[in-house]
Amino acid sequence: MSLQTKYLLNESQMPKFWYNIQADLPSPAPAVLHPGTLQPVGPDDLAPLFPMELIMQEVSTEREIEIPEPVRDVYRAWRPAPLYRAHRLEKALGTPAKIFYKYEGVSPAGSHKPNTAVAQAFYHKKAGVKRLTTETGAGQWGTALSYAGALFGLQVEIYQVRVSYDQKPYRRAVMETYGARCVASPSNETVYGRSVLAKTPDHPGSLGIAISEAVEMAVQREDTKYALGSVLNHVLLHQTIIGLEAMEQMQMADAWPDVVLACAGGGSNFAGLAFPFIGDGLRGGQKPRIVAVEPAACPSLTRGKYAYDFGDTGRMTPLSKMHTLGSQFTPPGFHAGGLRYHGMAPLVSHLKELGLLEAVAYNQVECFEAGVLFARNEGIVPAPEANHAIKGAIEEALRCKREGKSETILFNLSGHGHFDMVAYQKYFAGELSDESYDEKELAASLAGLPSVPA
Amino acid sequence: MSLQTKYLLNESQMPKFWYNIQADLPSPAPAVLHPGTLQPVGPDDLAPLFPMELIMQEVSTEREIEIPEPVRDVYRAWRPAPLYRAHRLEKALGTPAKIFYKYEGVSPAGSHKPNTAVAQAFYHKKAGVKRLTTETGAGQWGTALSYAGALFGLQVEIYQVRVSYDQKPYRRAVMETYGARCVASPSNETVYGRSVLAKTPDHPGSLGIAISEAVEMAVQREDTKYALGSVLNHVLLHQTIIGLEAMEQMQMADAWPDVVLACAGGGSNFAGLAFPFIGDGLRGGQKPRIVAVEPAACPSLTRGKYAYDFGDTGRMTPLSKMHTLGSQFTPPGFHAGGLRYHGMAPLVSHLKELGLLEAVAYNQVECFEAGVLFARNEGIVPAPEANHAIKGAIEEALRCKREGKSETILFNLSGHGHFDMVAYQKYFAGELSDESYDEKELAASLAGLPSVPA
Repeated sequence: MSLQTKYLLNESQMPKFWYNIQADLPSPAPAVLHPGTLQPVGPDDLAPLFPMELIMQEVSTEREIEIPEPVRDVYRAWRPAPLYRAHRLEKALGTPAKIFYKYEGVSPAGSHKPNTAVAQAFYHKKAGVKRLTTETGAGQWGTALSYAGALFGLQVEIYQVRVSYDQKPYRRAVMETYGARCVASPSNETVYGRSVLAKTPDHPGSLGIAISEAVEMAVQREDTKYALGSVLNHVLLHQTIIGLEAMEQMQMADAWPDVVLACAGGGSNFAGLAFPFIGDGLRGGQKPRIVAVEPAACPSLTRGKYAYDFGDTGRMTPLSKMHTLGSQFTPPGFHAGGLRYHGMAPLVSHLKELGLLEAVAYNQVECFEAGVLFARNEGIVPAPEANHAIKGAIEEALRCKREGKSETILFNLSGHGHFDMVAYQKYFAGELSDESYDEKELAASLAGLPSVPA
Repeated sequence: MSLQTKYLLNESQMPKFWYNIQADLPSPAPAVLHPGTLQPVGPDDLAPLFPMELIMQEVSTEREIEIPEPVRDVYRAWRPAPLYRAHRLEKALGTPAKIFYKYEGVSPAGSHKPNTAVAQAFYHKKAGVKRLTTETGAGQWGTALSYAGALFGLQVEIYQVRVSYDQKPYRRAVMETYGARCVASPSNETVYGRSVLAKTPDHPGSLGIAISEAVEMAVQREDTKYALGSVLNHVLLHQTIIGLEAMEQMQMADAWPDVVLACAGGGSNFAGLAFPFIGDGLRGGQKPRIVAVEPAACPSLTRGKYAYDFGDTGRMTPLSKMHTLGSQFTPPGFHAGGLRYHGMAPLVSHLKELGLLEAVAYNQVECFEAGVLFARNEGIVPAPEANHAIKGAIEEALRCKREGKSETILFNLSGHGHFDMVAYQKYFAGELSDESYDEKELAASLAGLPSVPA
């Protein structure tokens, strides 16, 4: 009985460099603009938020960027992460396809997020920063940054979307266990938070609002800077260790993917797995199909507009060109909290425009169905976000079955679902439905995009 | 900055045999008695509950028992499990001691329990069993058996202590995700459950009652057998893979423990780590101090009586000689649910009587304090059960500091705390207290121990 095959690298095989796809792009991504002047931002504009080494990574076109030894030292607590062949799932589906998955749930925070949280904490610490602010929704990112902050001796202050703060106290307890301070957002601690509460005292909060609050607090204080868990180029860069390891592991398995899939919210776990494969193709290697799987209830890549937009609701951040539903769009409350963001990473968006990747969207109930099938066959309970990747992979495997093709499918199992069991409980109780957004609200949000001269 | 050092074995170094301490005992453990005849039980007496291969392991005196290849195949999904040197915790304590810990939270169920769940499911499946019944309290064991049942195609039916069933719906959701059926115990499905409910309709349940129900359902049905998550010899045997791996890893680290610690409820994670070291000492090797750490609120080893007792409240199981608080004892509702059992594994009890191990007890608040210190330094949030082992290890490290000794301390981090964050939340809110039992109730329970002629 061959249940799963695990491909595990030695620590000595752990990548020593992150992969920067900006080195291999046929055309560079559009510039990031200053929200006031609408001129391209320079490093100094970003200095109130980020340390210079991260700003340099944001714009670098060097192909390989060295992973500092202290970051590798922390990575080794759980990396290299395993790659599995899903023999049992293949059998359950009756597909001739080979299904592989890279598993990032082995990190102490239970997801891929520490790959960048640890790197960011390191660079901030090195630059003399004492405190980091950030936002979190469901809490995966907040947990990861709390973990990294504890290890590098940084105070971490987390603006958590109020509805999650109230409904997911156990996730907050994880962050507090790591020593972080959690604040329900919108809060009375910031000018922007107070302005939201003045209009709507019982506002449930959103990621966009929490970002505005975290940014405001970072800008105000000399010893404090800001950390973002997705979207930005340097975040995607740090996640490429996922794909770099996966490439070595696929070689161990004597296989290579025809299709690479990951769920996409802000885009970081997707980019982490996909960018090294895309880059390999751009440099003359094989070109697997690359598929981003997003939630039908927050479909920035499949339904959004490719336009300049703010990263936050309070319109404090620079403007990036990306697939967006509009920074005033509030996604419905489905359970894959990590995919509830109005925009997509500018680099992912740019690659979509270049035709280097595809995107599909699935509803939440069918994604949970896929996740349960996966758990019963592979033994791992996935995070609701990762269920989207699983759904995408299963659909590809079933296509292979229909077409009689034995393609090789690789997807990213970005995290475990241990903190999300309330959602599974609702699924089993039949209380989960396919949340959808209001078309009029989306149209209004898109109509309200900032106007930027071409 | 050396944060943690991880010692990871290759898959080829994963042990191929479990270690059976019954081969090396200076005197055998007292016989298990039939509850009716008070005569030693034979294999046939146990056949309604267990398949013959597990019954043979229960009484075997062979030193090495081969781990079947299909069991090793599943183990490889997460084993060999890592061993870490806790550099940061040592530094935080300012101790000259070296602290190592074996981490079993990397399993898909998040604890050491799958080590035996997978083995048991394999032997039951091989014997043609279709369905397994079991009990669970907090849910670690139920989760592990559900996982194993899903992989081997066995139906799993879990009698879950009602108070946990009601208060921890997310743990139940994990078991249901793996396809198991959970029943709140006491239930109307069994004669014993109905008898309890007739007396106390809102009975909160206990492990002892849930065992009675699970045993009753297994005995009644031809295609159904029973699985226990701790206490029995074969369960302890399967867990010895922990200690066997740890011995290889300590050699990799060029170190050997002066003290070995683990928390002890039924005794399985404790035995899993400790028995291989004890056996090595019995065969002429080094003899580290062996310390079982139990909760002050359920102190079978430190306050119980070494006597014959039932394993369940309904008095259906055979009688084992063990350290017990009495099968009618109801431990208070502290958060380390996995340590809330009235008895200690007979083999662990026997070794205690032989002077081969020590036992200490700690209160819950000081254990959570230790767990939080650990999380902030080592990055892993421990299960409340494991916090007892951490507390014990920290006390040893502080003793080394006082005495100026650089001893080597090894403990078992038996599981992560991701499903137990409600307890941490209460700890941070100052709502956690040191639960204690009623001395009179304990005296009455001990007075009610079955009388067995010497």
